[in-house]
Amino acid sequence: MVRLADLPIRDDLRGRSPYGAPQIDVPVRLNTNENPYPPSAGLVDALAEAVRRDAAELNRYPDRDAVALREDLAAYLGHGLTPGQVWAANGSNEVLQQILQAFGGPGRSAMGFEPSYSMHPIITTGASTRWIAGAREDDFGLDPEKAVAAVEEHRPDIVFLTSPNNPTGTALPMEAIQRVVEAAPGMVVVDEAYFEFARTGTPSALTLLPGNPRLIVTRTMSKAFAMAGTRLGYLAADPAVIEALLLVRLPYHLSTLTQAAARVALAHRVELLGTVDRLRAERDACVARLRGQGLSVADSDANFVLFGRFPDRRAVWEALLARGVLIREVGPPQWLRVSVGTTEEMAAFHEAMTAVLAVSDVIPASGIPGGDEPEEIA
Amino acid sequence: MVRLADLPIRDDLRGRSPYGAPQIDVPVRLNTNENPYPPSAGLVDALAEAVRRDAAELNRYPDRDAVALREDLAAYLGHGLTPGQVWAANGSNEVLQQILQAFGGPGRSAMGFEPSYSMHPIITTGASTRWIAGAREDDFGLDPEKAVAAVEEHRPDIVFLTSPNNPTGTALPMEAIQRVVEAAPGMVVVDEAYFEFARTGTPSALTLLPGNPRLIVTRTMSKAFAMAGTRLGYLAADPAVIEALLLVRLPYHLSTLTQAAARVALAHRVELLGTVDRLRAERDACVARLRGQGLSVADSDANFVLFGRFPDRRAVWEALLARGVLIREVGPPQWLRVSVGTTEEMAAFHEAMTAVLAVSDVIPASGIPGGDEPEEIA
Repeated sequence: MVRLADLPIRDDLRGRSPYGAPQIDVPVRLNTNENPYPPSAGLVDALAEAVRRDAAELNRYPDRDAVALREDLAAYLGHGLTPGQVWAANGSNEVLQQILQAFGGPGRSAMGFEPSYSMHPIITTGASTRWIAGAREDDFGLDPEKAVAAVEEHRPDIVFLTSPNNPTGTALPMEAIQRVVEAAPGMVVVDEAYFEFARTGTPSALTLLPGNPRLIVTRTMSKAFAMAGTRLGYLAADPAVIEALLLVRLPYHLSTLTQAAARVALAHRVELLGTVDRLRAERDACVARLRGQGLSVADSDANFVLFGRFPDRRAVWEALLARGVLIREVGPPQWLRVSVGTTEEMAAFHEAMTAVLAVSDVIPASGIPGGDEPEEIA
Repeated sequence: MVRLADLPIRDDLRGRSPYGAPQIDVPVRLNTNENPYPPSAGLVDALAEAVRRDAAELNRYPDRDAVALREDLAAYLGHGLTPGQVWAANGSNEVLQQILQAFGGPGRSAMGFEPSYSMHPIITTGASTRWIAGAREDDFGLDPEKAVAAVEEHRPDIVFLTSPNNPTGTALPMEAIQRVVEAAPGMVVVDEAYFEFARTGTPSALTLLPGNPRLIVTRTMSKAFAMAGTRLGYLAADPAVIEALLLVRLPYHLSTLTQAAARVALAHRVELLGTVDRLRAERDACVARLRGQGLSVADSDANFVLFGRFPDRRAVWEALLARGVLIREVGPPQWLRVSVGTTEEMAAFHEAMTAVLAVSDVIPASGIPGGDEPEEIA
């Protein structure tokens, strides 16, 4: 019997555990920020027909450059973007990995402002790039002055800005992004995986692309598009950035089926994005309800809500799980994250939360009902 | 207008061109070792139905560990393998990249014996790992003594052995693989992408897995399985190796559609692998015919044939292309590689070759008709 430790793995991997939330089969799964609405029967039909059409050529390699898909993505993004400014890969994690492979590497560094998406440091160090952990403010926002100072101090080759931020839900003002782009000596990646859920009027960093060839905006079809199973991430940037990514992407890497399915989803975008308004309404109701129970709740522009604070968040997580509700133990200590589900799922979550809050040993560290003032974050 | 050179890309990428054969739309495409036989109508139906079934859950992330697919792959491979000894990713290139991420990295090295699959050094250096170019013998085989001596001299962290080898078609005897595994201080990867095409009786390195926890055997569904568009590569190794790969693979990375399509293909394996005998017969006929024309031709256990030698191979490649036949300019200087296609495609290739050989300025460097003896390799 050989153990992992007996193998000659890279030293920095020793003792590590695989990334990923527990995949537990429970009635209410609100742990990985999936969109709870499955594809309609019409969309399923369209997907099956697209596969039927393209499967006839499955013995051939896919279009290596995914030209038709990139045309559709550019049209969806708008802002005058062309296919030459768009790139796609198997999920936005792979998009980020390709960025690290092109612009990171040994002797280089990438910086993010935590708490944020935990895959950023994992993908960074996985690409043998040094991770520099900056900090967000107490309200999970970014102070432009401090962010610029941190960038100027560390001079990272890549800066990650996540907006809306995961796991806090916080959207960044354009001014903060613009200031960081101006200060950064290298590339700036704005991870907009949750952008479609942002409150009305929230601008996208896509508006900053003209004149900023070192800016990259990443998106995904896993969230608002309800296509997590399809694995399609993409980005918009200067055409020269796309040229750089062509040097590191594996050839023929985005499958014929993925390209076809993503194009069908884009053609059905009105239907798919039609879920966004419902999810935003559920999200805002969730924030209000948790605050009404005296909890600290971060403002959210995403399809999840971060709330706390619990001296023993694990106990809360487990108590909810025991009631059939799976949420995520992630983010800063004492906080938990719930993905926004259907009306029924959110009712089940709130019912379970109410029951759990009645148990004395999981009461919040602050803001308990009848105690301190409820804490509003950001 | 920003140029690629203006961006802060990694120094070792500067001046490089993207990997990949020209994707040219010509009548006869024999350049990327695809299987020329498209899926049958029955298989297309089955693929569409599988997608219809699984698309209903596309809003959810895929099974991160692809358990059902790995069960099917283990059953296909046989040799008593269990799902815990099998891993799958988006094409065997990604499988190889994950191996490099787990066992390579800065300060580490990987070694191959050239000429061989050119993605091995590209993926190696892409993972910031030093590439050590060993050499095959003049007949494109491997002398076990010399291979062991090279491994003992360089002590690479990873050794690549390709069998059957691309672009030469050469299968390695088990003795050579066993000797290298015994001598290697780290991991040994046997790339068996073309194994199903090997001549009857050729053993697989899978037979060497018991007792060799540092041996990895990689395979693909792009070639014999005629599923290049699906992007499904896989490997078999000790369960501890799979544990190591779980530390570096991106989470939820193999799409629901890819997992479904690969399982359908495995269920239809009798039909799909039914093309292998035809392709082997065409390959052997191609070897014989080119030798009959006085050319040097490498023995082939794959679905392609390497032949030469031409003082100006580019001229031959272009002359064939002008006649509607696209082959590959790859491998050692003066040699060209033709993928084995259908009977009709091979007839078109031979007709074009005969016409091209009649042109005086592309005559072989050796073995011209009526000149030297035809050269038989290996």
